[in-house]
Amino acid sequence: MLNKNIETFIACDKEYSEADFILWGAPFDSTTSFRPGTRFASSAIRHESFGIETYSPYLDKDMENDLMAFDAGDLELVFGESEKVLTQVEIMTAEIAKDGKIPVMIGGEHSLSSAPIKALLKKYPDLQIIHFDAHTDLREDYLGNKWSHASVIKRCWDMLGDGRINSFGIRSGMKEEFEWAKEHINLHKFNFLGLEGTVTALEDKPVYFTLDLDILDPSVFPGTGTPEAGGVSFEELRQAVLLLKDLNVVGLDVMELSPHYDQSGASTAVACKIIREILLTLKNKPSSLNIK
Amino acid sequence: MLNKNIETFIACDKEYSEADFILWGAPFDSTTSFRPGTRFASSAIRHESFGIETYSPYLDKDMENDLMAFDAGDLELVFGESEKVLTQVEIMTAEIAKDGKIPVMIGGEHSLSSAPIKALLKKYPDLQIIHFDAHTDLREDYLGNKWSHASVIKRCWDMLGDGRINSFGIRSGMKEEFEWAKEHINLHKFNFLGLEGTVTALEDKPVYFTLDLDILDPSVFPGTGTPEAGGVSFEELRQAVLLLKDLNVVGLDVMELSPHYDQSGASTAVACKIIREILLTLKNKPSSLNIK
Amino acid sequence: MLNKNIETFIACDKEYSEADFILWGAPFDSTTSFRPGTRFASSAIRHESFGIETYSPYLDKDMENDLMAFDAGDLELVFGESEKVLTQVEIMTAEIAKDGKIPVMIGGEHSLSSAPIKALLKKYPDLQIIHFDAHTDLREDYLGNKWSHASVIKRCWDMLGDGRINSFGIRSGMKEEFEWAKEHINLHKFNFLGLEGTVTALEDKPVYFTLDLDILDPSVFPGTGTPEAGGVSFEELRQAVLLLKDLNVVGLDVMELSPHYDQSGASTAVACKIIREILLTLKNKPSSLNIK
Amino acid sequence: MLNKNIETFIACDKEYSEADFILWGAPFDSTTSFRPGTRFASSAIRHESFGIETYSPYLDKDMENDLMAFDAGDLELVFGESEKVLTQVEIMTAEIAKDGKIPVMIGGEHSLSSAPIKALLKKYPDLQIIHFDAHTDLREDYLGNKWSHASVIKRCWDMLGDGRINSFGIRSGMKEEFEWAKEHINLHKFNFLGLEGTVTALEDKPVYFTLDLDILDPSVFPGTGTPEAGGVSFEELRQAVLLLKDLNVVGLDVMELSPHYDQSGASTAVACKIIREILLTLKNKPSSLNIK
Amino acid sequence: MLNKNIETFIACDKEYSEADFILWGAPFDSTTSFRPGTRFASSAIRHESFGIETYSPYLDKDMENDLMAFDAGDLELVFGESEKVLTQVEIMTAEIAKDGKIPVMIGGEHSLSSAPIKALLKKYPDLQIIHFDAHTDLREDYLGNKWSHASVIKRCWDMLGDGRINSFGIRSGMKEEFEWAKEHINLHKFNFLGLEGTVTALEDKPVYFTLDLDILDPSVFPGTGTPEAGGVSFEELRQAVLLLKDLNVVGLDVMELSPHYDQSGASTAVACKIIREILLTLKNKPSSLNIK
Amino acid sequence: MLNKNIETFIACDKEYSEADFILWGAPFDSTTSFRPGTRFASSAIRHESFGIETYSPYLDKDMENDLMAFDAGDLELVFGESEKVLTQVEIMTAEIAKDGKIPVMIGGEHSLSSAPIKALLKKYPDLQIIHFDAHTDLREDYLGNKWSHASVIKRCWDMLGDGRINSFGIRSGMKEEFEWAKEHINLHKFNFLGLEGTVTALEDKPVYFTLDLDILDPSVFPGTGTPEAGGVSFEELRQAVLLLKDLNVVGLDVMELSPHYDQSGASTAVACKIIREILLTLKNKPSSLNIK
Repeated sequence: MLNKNIETFIACDKEYSEADFILWGAPFDSTTSFRPGTRFASSAIRHESFGIETYSPYLDKDMENDLMAFDAGDLELVFGESEKVLTQVEIMTAEIAKDGKIPVMIGGEHSLSSAPIKALLKKYPDLQIIHFDAHTDLREDYLGNKWSHASVIKRCWDMLGDGRINSFGIRSGMKEEFEWAKEHINLHKFNFLGLEGTVTALEDKPVYFTLDLDILDPSVFPGTGTPEAGGVSFEELRQAVLLLKDLNVVGLDVMELSPHYDQSGASTAVACKIIREILLTLKNKPSSLNIK
Repeated sequence: MLNKNIETFIACDKEYSEADFILWGAPFDSTTSFRPGTRFASSAIRHESFGIETYSPYLDKDMENDLMAFDAGDLELVFGESEKVLTQVEIMTAEIAKDGKIPVMIGGEHSLSSAPIKALLKKYPDLQIIHFDAHTDLREDYLGNKWSHASVIKRCWDMLGDGRINSFGIRSGMKEEFEWAKEHINLHKFNFLGLEGTVTALEDKPVYFTLDLDILDPSVFPGTGTPEAGGVSFEELRQAVLLLKDLNVVGLDVMELSPHYDQSGASTAVACKIIREILLTLKNKPSSLNIK
Repeated sequence: MLNKNIETFIACDKEYSEADFILWGAPFDSTTSFRPGTRFASSAIRHESFGIETYSPYLDKDMENDLMAFDAGDLELVFGESEKVLTQVEIMTAEIAKDGKIPVMIGGEHSLSSAPIKALLKKYPDLQIIHFDAHTDLREDYLGNKWSHASVIKRCWDMLGDGRINSFGIRSGMKEEFEWAKEHINLHKFNFLGLEGTVTALEDKPVYFTLDLDILDPSVFPGTGTPEAGGVSFEELRQAVLLLKDLNVVGLDVMELSPHYDQSGASTAVACKIIREILLTLKNKPSSLNIK
Repeated sequence: MLNKNIETFIACDKEYSEADFILWGAPFDSTTSFRPGTRFASSAIRHESFGIETYSPYLDKDMENDLMAFDAGDLELVFGESEKVLTQVEIMTAEIAKDGKIPVMIGGEHSLSSAPIKALLKKYPDLQIIHFDAHTDLREDYLGNKWSHASVIKRCWDMLGDGRINSFGIRSGMKEEFEWAKEHINLHKFNFLGLEGTVTALEDKPVYFTLDLDILDPSVFPGTGTPEAGGVSFEELRQAVLLLKDLNVVGLDVMELSPHYDQSGASTAVACKIIREILLTLKNKPSSLNIK
Repeated sequence: MLNKNIETFIACDKEYSEADFILWGAPFDSTTSFRPGTRFASSAIRHESFGIETYSPYLDKDMENDLMAFDAGDLELVFGESEKVLTQVEIMTAEIAKDGKIPVMIGGEHSLSSAPIKALLKKYPDLQIIHFDAHTDLREDYLGNKWSHASVIKRCWDMLGDGRINSFGIRSGMKEEFEWAKEHINLHKFNFLGLEGTVTALEDKPVYFTLDLDILDPSVFPGTGTPEAGGVSFEELRQAVLLLKDLNVVGLDVMELSPHYDQSGASTAVACKIIREILLTLKNKPSSLNIK
Repeated sequence: MLNKNIETFIACDKEYSEADFILWGAPFDSTTSFRPGTRFASSAIRHESFGIETYSPYLDKDMENDLMAFDAGDLELVFGESEKVLTQVEIMTAEIAKDGKIPVMIGGEHSLSSAPIKALLKKYPDLQIIHFDAHTDLREDYLGNKWSHASVIKRCWDMLGDGRINSFGIRSGMKEEFEWAKEHINLHKFNFLGLEGTVTALEDKPVYFTLDLDILDPSVFPGTGTPEAGGVSFEELRQAVLLLKDLNVVGLDVMELSPHYDQSGASTAVACKIIREILLTLKNKPSSLNIK
């Protein structure tokens, strides 16, 4: 007797009850202003993940042995209904957090990140954000839409307030956004300068890590809606991820792959590999976190 | 002294005041459920229209001499805000209709068609719809979203009621939609059988013509979000358009080209050519229409 | 508590025990002589099947209600090892046939078809073949390789002998193959002329139906390794499938989609739709077959 | 000891001295007004020709046994220098004609066709032209350039005068071109209606056959610079070619494939197959022609 | 009443009379020897420029407030007529220079650069050239064509003579070109070493800046006709541009994007961003230049 | 009288008898586990090589004058028959080596490399291997197939034993492979650290150089079956090749380009340029080698 076809991100096939990390896909791109397509990311990442190995020669760890992860597949999200979708994602995250596990969202457009942050903030009132991105994402709204992916960090600030958002790699935005950031968040332009200090400052706090993959240079990662020249290399990103290893990361997301824009598949492969490195780098259980 | 760069659909460069047809682009695809990309259609159509001639050897008419048309460019529509966008389109259409001109929307996703129909219904209470499409578009909602492109004809029915919508070429939908259609609209499956009779029946009534280009077979028109095998040929569509020549068409749209899915450009060229044929076929002025 | 991610061809999510049709993917293309890539077909078909509806307006049947089907996912086949792979497929088919169900293989290269035929021939010694294809596939070997996809029908003949293979739509091959065919199989060139007679002749016999999708014209189906101009239309293929409705089909396959060669996705959509039409057309249970 | 790598169109590997047909590539596209790329055609056709068979089941002839053809490779043509290039092609053609062989040019843009016609007109003063195309190509000049590919048939008329050019399949052009054609050439719109009569009328005259592949519908042949909807099918073209079998064709060309615009390769495969059918259809030797 | 559709490079929508920089597109690629397609660059750059912001976080300047620029659209250039085209470009440039504004040409193939240089040389007899490129472009002719894009710097030298051309980043050419360069121009291989000294030496002279974008590594900029491995990074190019800030640049061009070869759009985005950085870096008015 | 069309890698058109380097293509990819397509590499490399120059400004050498090379074209290899194919390649290599020339294989999948190594080991029993790659390629077998491209270095070790294989750039593999490597081969992770020492140690020994191009970062070289982020740059690879200049290289290969996955052509251009640099760097004649 045969079994139904199960598809997961590579080696994320443990049982839910025993897993530390719970991945799910969030195929949604309705507010994307320039070029849509991130809806295809989670499925492509899951499928192409079998092109990489489970073992990291950087970390000398293997997903098969050193990681307990579970992939719940894609949420069914209604295109064109931002608020409904954000609620769905928030409920999903809350459920996972309640079970003592770490939620890992694979986007999808960046606007979705405010939903798991909203859910986790209830559990961790002192939640801090580490944000890797090419773009400020600090618009109050985009042509009147406050749920746009260009506004997501502003929406997070609405919830967290000053001084708790730490952005790195930012190389594009309106002048007003950069001005506003000076007063309200810790925005680091162009690269990861300052990340070590940030990690030290946050080491006993609960942290949400949101990774907009367009922080990477378009040469490394052309598969994204808004390619922005002058980004970091894969190696720079990998080493920045490594710096996060002692943080108490209670949730994370990896957003904004738009796989159809890179028909070589290299962008998807980059996404798969950085997800592997993140999962193998982070501490496994929120229950073991040193959160004061 | 140089002039600013003006770009229009080929030969749609008359002055607004003297034009009969007013074209505009509606770059919006936020509710598209399968593959987005129709937002790029109006710009691609405008740009690639210079690959066709202004003269139709089928009709022996030339857009330069036999047509007064004006291209207003693209509306700036907010992604992810269906209701706001529909209002924008409705206002645009109403303004054009008020000036005694025929609105021609180049989409964009099909959900937008309910907006010009809403505007024109105020001017023409007896408005009838001719609808060419592969899909029924008769869902009450799609996962709760009643403004989905899968619901647009149902939204039109909400406004018009029974017997005033005439669909042709339909080859995909839920069983329930086909069942419902039997009672409420004139749905013709697979091809244009019955179009001549419909035209005769509508000849003294105001008609809105909505063309979802995916009525064409994917071999002819692969550049669309939901390719559905078994459609009509270009020649069949062209001849069906010709049948509309004596109707009092008071507004029209051409929707659902997703140009990036056909990198040969053939789908965009098909869209350009059918727009030319439509414009050269239809009567030029609503003011000269025989509407009882 | 969340569930693991299950992915099936649309509506093929019934339980194995209650299903009549058992689908599986056979991602293998190692002998493909011109352009490989059919290994990606089964996964693409499964994924893109959600772009079509479960309801067929042609047949007025719905996969949700009128079909019991199960999708076992992809076999893990070793590239470059034809004989090992054929054995795997043969075992899979035998198991399904033993359970009284109809095996449905989604290829993959055409060479694989000899394996389910070998398995079913043991159960049905009077097995007949209906073969839709652009190519004869009658080479004794291809550069010495007798398991090449150019030899698959010859391999079937090795097992079945004269008069039991009925090929349709053939428009390419070596002169020697066409000559040989005259003596040994029922080869119909270019189209489906003669299919009605064949169906009548086979109506009380067990039949294996092997569909090489390149029978379709490349305009309809460019996503294949060896595009061969002059093929049948989708509508011609659909009507040919309809003619099979009274046959006792005990196994079938749908082969040779190479999805990457058609980046519009139209070829994959064609494959999905024809699979739906085949499944809804055929009798559901071999146990109910009129096999003498 | 190894041999240098020789590449020819399939089965066009006979010795020059014994060959009847001499093929060469003309990679030039400098005047192409819309989208260039036909420069890549001859090389792509040569390379992809190994995807078709040497045997035609339509004609029951095989290039290996029933044809003596030779492929000289590509001419080295200087981009941007139309007049120099036309002279090169003219000299090439004259040399081949002098050797009693039939020149077969694989383009490249259509403007080149005037060069072999010029060369052959010297040998055959009564030369007639059969021209298959989507476009009139009758502009006196294109923005002042009289060697544009939009002017090639006008350039031929400059040499031949009234009544000797027979165009078929024309579905695009300026109104003035269609008007002018009525007085000067035999222009048949849209399809091959009238070809039989033309063939009868020309049967004892030397004929040059120029085939612009964009006569095919873009669904069949998207790989061209100016896709023009509404063309003929492959089967219609194949049957039209068959009608030419009794003509005294003294030279021919197959132009305007732009292979990069069709990444499926189907357009190139269509070009290869129609070239095979043409070569196997035509009489082999000008020396055996019934030219009065 | 609606307005005609105006399209410009982002924020280059000031009035001509008040603008300092006048952009125009030069869609021409007829002499391109390897792969054409730069004709599509100016239109793609204009269209995709809305994917970047008007604000530069590198320079802390905003195109909206800190720049007066005007986009005149594309010149209509005749394919295949180099000399006519060069004259058109020369006249365009002379007109702009006469009005005291800085001409900015967006190519198109590099051969065009000799035309604005010819025009500006009349106004600024001491004109110097700074040339960023992968290729020497110093051939006397290419297969007899002296207006080839492989000869453009040699054509400039014909007008300027020794010591006034400063090339950087050169990593490809014939041996003879590199030898010749040693005597006649200042050629810097591979990178920007020596650029600071060159800027110092030229600081009170009128300078034309010609940027062949293929100086960038193909990983950053695959969208070009002749990808040449081993180029500079975006960051290296950006910093090189910054070094030009004190020069008296009286004209410039940005050439050789071939957008279709990079379907991710990243190459076009790179071109847009470097144009923004150049415009915001350079002094605004030739009338304010310190030219001795 | 015309000549048959000869196509070679640029400037590899010397006579066989006088050539030092003998290139041939090995179009085979049947065991490729993830994405096939390397079969198209040798033909693409040969064709696109005309986009680079014969002169290297890095080495100040020119292939026209400083190199004697011959291109034998592609071997005809049977897909799906690894052992047969390996024998063909071994015989080819042995013949070339017997003639005192250096075999240069252009792949094709990496599994083929064991064949020339087997042939050369008979001539040079002390043969050493320098191996540049992203992947360990040390699996004993892949799903039972010991001739898989994931096993090629293990197959080489079967013949050579411990300490004679020197791998560089390795960044992917199973944990077991990395463990095994510690005892048996000299595996250098991630980059070329240690290459200088290796070269010194091998300087009087016969060396086979096998280059899997996926050692390059996917940003530089997306055209490969298994893109693996974090690779070396073109410049790093070029400098590593330069280090090999004093070695006694008796055979080499350049493998794993899969050109269709990079439609920009940049990957193919990279392959062409590195082949040029390798050929111009290495000593020309094994007969002049200092092999002890």
